[in-house]
Amino acid sequence: MLFYNKNILIVGLGLMGASLGQALIKRRQSKDDFKVLGYARKQQTVDIALDNCIIDQGSSDLESMAKQADIIVLCVPMLSIESSLQAIKPFLKDQVILTDVGSVKDEVIRASKKVFGNMPNYFVPGHPIAGAEKSGVMAANSELYDCHQVILTPDIYTDKIALNTIESIWKFVGAHVVEMNVEHHDHVLAATSHLPHLLAFSLVNTLNHRSENREIFHYAAGGFRDFTRIAASETTMWHDIFKCNKDALLEVLNSFTADLDILKEAISSNDEQTIKSVLSEAKTAREYFTEVLQARSNK
Amino acid sequence: MLFYNKNILIVGLGLMGASLGQALIKRRQSKDDFKVLGYARKQQTVDIALDNCIIDQGSSDLESMAKQADIIVLCVPMLSIESSLQAIKPFLKDQVILTDVGSVKDEVIRASKKVFGNMPNYFVPGHPIAGAEKSGVMAANSELYDCHQVILTPDIYTDKIALNTIESIWKFVGAHVVEMNVEHHDHVLAATSHLPHLLAFSLVNTLNHRSENREIFHYAAGGFRDFTRIAASETTMWHDIFKCNKDALLEVLNSFTADLDILKEAISSNDEQTIKSVLSEAKTAREYFTEVLQARSNK
Repeated sequence: MLFYNKNILIVGLGLMGASLGQALIKRRQSKDDFKVLGYARKQQTVDIALDNCIIDQGSSDLESMAKQADIIVLCVPMLSIESSLQAIKPFLKDQVILTDVGSVKDEVIRASKKVFGNMPNYFVPGHPIAGAEKSGVMAANSELYDCHQVILTPDIYTDKIALNTIESIWKFVGAHVVEMNVEHHDHVLAATSHLPHLLAFSLVNTLNHRSENREIFHYAAGGFRDFTRIAASETTMWHDIFKCNKDALLEVLNSFTADLDILKEAISSNDEQTIKSVLSEAKTAREYFTEVLQARSNK
Repeated sequence: MLFYNKNILIVGLGLMGASLGQALIKRRQSKDDFKVLGYARKQQTVDIALDNCIIDQGSSDLESMAKQADIIVLCVPMLSIESSLQAIKPFLKDQVILTDVGSVKDEVIRASKKVFGNMPNYFVPGHPIAGAEKSGVMAANSELYDCHQVILTPDIYTDKIALNTIESIWKFVGAHVVEMNVEHHDHVLAATSHLPHLLAFSLVNTLNHRSENREIFHYAAGGFRDFTRIAASETTMWHDIFKCNKDALLEVLNSFTADLDILKEAISSNDEQTIKSVLSEAKTAREYFTEVLQARSNK
């Protein structure tokens, strides 16, 4: 095991960080295998994490944790990555390995360059495609990453040992690891995650403003429930994602509104052929997607 | 029991009709309580329904079924309601009671007036707010309506016995029954069901057209999965709904696109305050909705 005997520090004990800590501790055979350290701004969060087997040792004093860390996983909102890097920079060990779980990899590169002047070769940007409706340390789920994809976005300078170590951590908690370049990652995620969330937030707001207002919620059908589920996600996290992935997001949002206009016009003009072709194409795409999911779960 | 000894005919053995039949048969104490008849265009569908305890007796010959029916539940796509009414009209018993499960009540009234010259007082329009990803007789689920809402839209002329009978059928299969006027129903459903489905269809199509195309599906995150789940719904059914509820749907779609433009502009201009207020309002609305769902399941 590439992280045998190492101290793994999780910076930020929200859903993502706390779930990683809990998964690592639950899956190891012995306490001697490796140690999970945790940092959170509030001591209360650290205490909860200690009580719930999320970390072995923790503190709200970042310096004391960073000094001991062999591997650091940043699990903070996108726009806090720069300040977190700045805060740990003076205390990094010589052989340290860094990674993160941010949803926009371009921002991680930018923050890194700002803090270090370049992208350190021991920093392996990462993004586990996993999440849940609830947030915070209490939402920790040791199975959160099991059978989920983790995308790593190394570049040609990334240290191979660092890359393999981060990969082995994610595999250890049950994830499938793939590599992708930064720009491609940010475009794909804009389409598959950021845009759907944006639409869900916007729809729930639109309905919340209407005159029928809250009565609407009493008659909410399946489709709307799924939307509100998505819209329950954490506010700061999504603000940061929308801001950091602005260009890719606006581009796919523009494609979406153009397509939506076509469908709207078709409904408005009773153009049965266009409506049916949109609906059946979407159904076919979904069927393909179901196959992908099944193939993945059979792996 | 208001439908004791009656013959209940289900016209159309898709997901909705087949699930109703199966629920009725599963919940009755004895075969003598009432009988479930079924009509489908294809004899093969009728045979499957007979094999799966969805109906007691069935035929692809509508006349033979309609003649025996005391209560008829139309479970056909919206735009087939008119032709179904036309087809059963010559064979209706004197004391027959009619209902349907269509998602747009205005269209049911229109079809009725076309066929009968008015809305017969024994016709109680209904709409169970329930559905599933799969469609067809094989998707029958005897628990589909359990704890779900059914909205009935009677008018002042509706016969009280007819109304009470239809209400008791839905309660018998576990549903909560509420009454609403037609226009209000169609507006509320445009917002809570029809618009979310329209957005899901449109989004899945947009993504399916992009250059990354199918690769996108391999990295689909939670948000997108929920959308594709919605988009798997039955094509003809949704075409009919969009067409029949066009005005209410376009109205709420216009509110939505106006709100979406505001959010888009906020992202484009880095207007943090607006973005955060949209996100936190959506989260609050969702929390309220969760309470509504919990209150309902505790009933």
